[in-house]
Amino acid sequence: MSFINETHDNSLTSWVASANQSGTDFPIQNLPFAIFRRANSSEEFRGGVAIGDQVLDLAIVAEAGIFSGEAHSAVTAANAAALNEFMGMGQSYWSALRLALSRALREGSDHQNTLEGALVPQSDVEYSMPCHIGDYTDFYTSIYHATAVGSLFRPDNPLLPNYKWVPIGYHGRSSSIDVSGQAFPRPKGQTKAPDADTPSFGPCKRLDYELELGIYLGKGNELGEHIAIENAENHVFGFCLFNDWSARDLQAWEYQPLGPFLAKNFASTVSPWIVTTEALAPYRTQWTRDENDPQPLEYLESAQNRESGSFDIQMDVAIETQKMRADNHAPSKVSESSFKHSYWTVAQMVTHHTVNGCNFLPGDMLGSGTQSGPDHEEAGSLLELSRGGKESITLTNGEERKFLEDGDTVIMRGWCEAEGFNRIGFGSVEGTILPAK
Amino acid sequence: MSFINETHDNSLTSWVASANQSGTDFPIQNLPFAIFRRANSSEEFRGGVAIGDQVLDLAIVAEAGIFSGEAHSAVTAANAAALNEFMGMGQSYWSALRLALSRALREGSDHQNTLEGALVPQSDVEYSMPCHIGDYTDFYTSIYHATAVGSLFRPDNPLLPNYKWVPIGYHGRSSSIDVSGQAFPRPKGQTKAPDADTPSFGPCKRLDYELELGIYLGKGNELGEHIAIENAENHVFGFCLFNDWSARDLQAWEYQPLGPFLAKNFASTVSPWIVTTEALAPYRTQWTRDENDPQPLEYLESAQNRESGSFDIQMDVAIETQKMRADNHAPSKVSESSFKHSYWTVAQMVTHHTVNGCNFLPGDMLGSGTQSGPDHEEAGSLLELSRGGKESITLTNGEERKFLEDGDTVIMRGWCEAEGFNRIGFGSVEGTILPAK
Repeated sequence: MSFINETHDNSLTSWVASANQSGTDFPIQNLPFAIFRRANSSEEFRGGVAIGDQVLDLAIVAEAGIFSGEAHSAVTAANAAALNEFMGMGQSYWSALRLALSRALREGSDHQNTLEGALVPQSDVEYSMPCHIGDYTDFYTSIYHATAVGSLFRPDNPLLPNYKWVPIGYHGRSSSIDVSGQAFPRPKGQTKAPDADTPSFGPCKRLDYELELGIYLGKGNELGEHIAIENAENHVFGFCLFNDWSARDLQAWEYQPLGPFLAKNFASTVSPWIVTTEALAPYRTQWTRDENDPQPLEYLESAQNRESGSFDIQMDVAIETQKMRADNHAPSKVSESSFKHSYWTVAQMVTHHTVNGCNFLPGDMLGSGTQSGPDHEEAGSLLELSRGGKESITLTNGEERKFLEDGDTVIMRGWCEAEGFNRIGFGSVEGTILPAK
Repeated sequence: MSFINETHDNSLTSWVASANQSGTDFPIQNLPFAIFRRANSSEEFRGGVAIGDQVLDLAIVAEAGIFSGEAHSAVTAANAAALNEFMGMGQSYWSALRLALSRALREGSDHQNTLEGALVPQSDVEYSMPCHIGDYTDFYTSIYHATAVGSLFRPDNPLLPNYKWVPIGYHGRSSSIDVSGQAFPRPKGQTKAPDADTPSFGPCKRLDYELELGIYLGKGNELGEHIAIENAENHVFGFCLFNDWSARDLQAWEYQPLGPFLAKNFASTVSPWIVTTEALAPYRTQWTRDENDPQPLEYLESAQNRESGSFDIQMDVAIETQKMRADNHAPSKVSESSFKHSYWTVAQMVTHHTVNGCNFLPGDMLGSGTQSGPDHEEAGSLLELSRGGKESITLTNGEERKFLEDGDTVIMRGWCEAEGFNRIGFGSVEGTILPAK
């Protein structure tokens, strides 16, 4: 469990000047991790930490030998082409490295001279997947999304009776998850119009994004053991932005009775930076449930979960069309929401997932499910914003969309704000639709 | 695509005498692959090939340097703790190694002296997973299973309208797949009795097996590219036995709208041996579809798929209870079926899975879905045999079962027979239910 400590102090400033600028996603209070190298180079990918507009190269930090104990072990493990080993070390190692990095990057640190040579401008780097995702599970934690989508797929029965009892989730595809910048052809598949006798085959006509958070598991559990809710967050390394692209017309035809399949597995995109659970401590909020709703079964209930199990992570989505790029027009924001609306907490997801003995491995990822808020304008997908494709939304340059068109780039951002603490951000996740092959 | 060649000749005999005994699963015409080491040793796991009651140690074969060209490269890659690299090399390498092994193990081979020291009795070894399974997808290809289970979950609507058009599948959990011998605690979870107002939490009461084949992908495809049906089998390395354990009461409550989740991901068990697609060439059969049924869309149709796209892989299931073990009573066979009843072929599964651009990696696995045959006695699960838990089945020692009890071991076997060819077998996959924790 992560609590407020000296690394969250909003009076801290860094000797990296850009980290002290107002509005940066990456002040010294954030310190997220990624895997990077200089763009278009043949360098090895290795771990890095964002600080202002720079990446701190953990290979150089590890080789400099300036940390000791758990922090030294942790940075050594993070000097690799994937963060899995570091993520699997557990909370005390993550905290030790965070504290060591916070102290080393602070104004007045003795390590400034050593580490100035370890900075690479973010504008000069490329990222790879931050870790190997063995298994990816997508949850469905926004009751607003579940109700809105349910009413389109099952008008007579939008929210199924299990929703308020079970943190509904399903297994997704790991192989097709890639890092921000992913560009992929419009998927093809079977669809069936309501009035057609037979299905037809062709490019998806209702291509959509889903605004989600990705939640990375750190330390896993043995098969047959479960993770109690009191201990669940100790297994959660951190969070990223996640676009779970969806082919709505494929989904409508294929999803019964075993769930979404080809409608989802053609591509999913994560942001390069993992913001640690510890960095998010100041932005925790109460988790409550309407007293008229069923309260969780005992295994999904804890005092800490009630008190601070939610995270107020704000997110928005923008679309940049081909025309906008040609016209040098800024991307058009289409909605904004927050993870605080989630009907289930991260701890509840972790505990539910393992209550049957299912095992996590370091680097496994959970999707939060589309994070739609209570208002229509806070919907996390075009399916919802366009009311099932019935109404177009108008972009800031006058173009209209019901679903995504070829050449559209979808840009999601995330950030946290709280009274008395610095704003921190997640960077962005971007992905682009290419024409069908 | 694998066709009949000299390695399938039923007149071939091996200098390994046990490979020539009638009834062996592993004559020289089979040559399946596994990862093994001597039991209870600290040896490295490495590739092995079954021949009679022995394992041919591929580490020794590789080091002996007796093969050349693609066969040498292939055996070198198979000398590893997982077969992924070898599997990713593709059809020509798999065939070259099979041919080289067939020739080296034949009666009269020049390599007999060299290879006699490379044999380890199967009774002395332990197995690990044959490869790292990145992603696992479970299909639903038995229309008899789909109809029988559908009638229990949805009496008014057993077979959904998409079934005859779409090879229905969903993503499963990789982390909890283990090799034969897996023992796991009875899963706990939420269930809701039809007459109850609220769900309750506790150990699963309707624990079941599912008789499936596992289908291993060899060479993968790039994200955004699809695998045409004419080329699909070139990507299929081989087949194993697969028990997709299922918690039916958890499943009934959780599975809508996103499919099975905790009902499946607590454990799944594969047989140690992968029987290659090439070894199965003599047991191919026609794939036909009732002329009153819709015929496949064009992307799922090919002449070769019609002509020989099915495999007559026979399978049976036995239960060994604690009492049987105490009484030294043989396991009780409960059903027998064949993969030839599958409504969709392996090539159709591969092509459908990638038609949207989804990518396979070497070692990915497809489950066939429960392979129930047309007759009630050929059902591949207890759910079906007990007609939804309404009727007990009687085991050969007089014990009765509706679902699995603690201490039960489930044993699945598979084999192929065809006129003019030797019988080959898959060995077995076994798993045991421990009491809930």
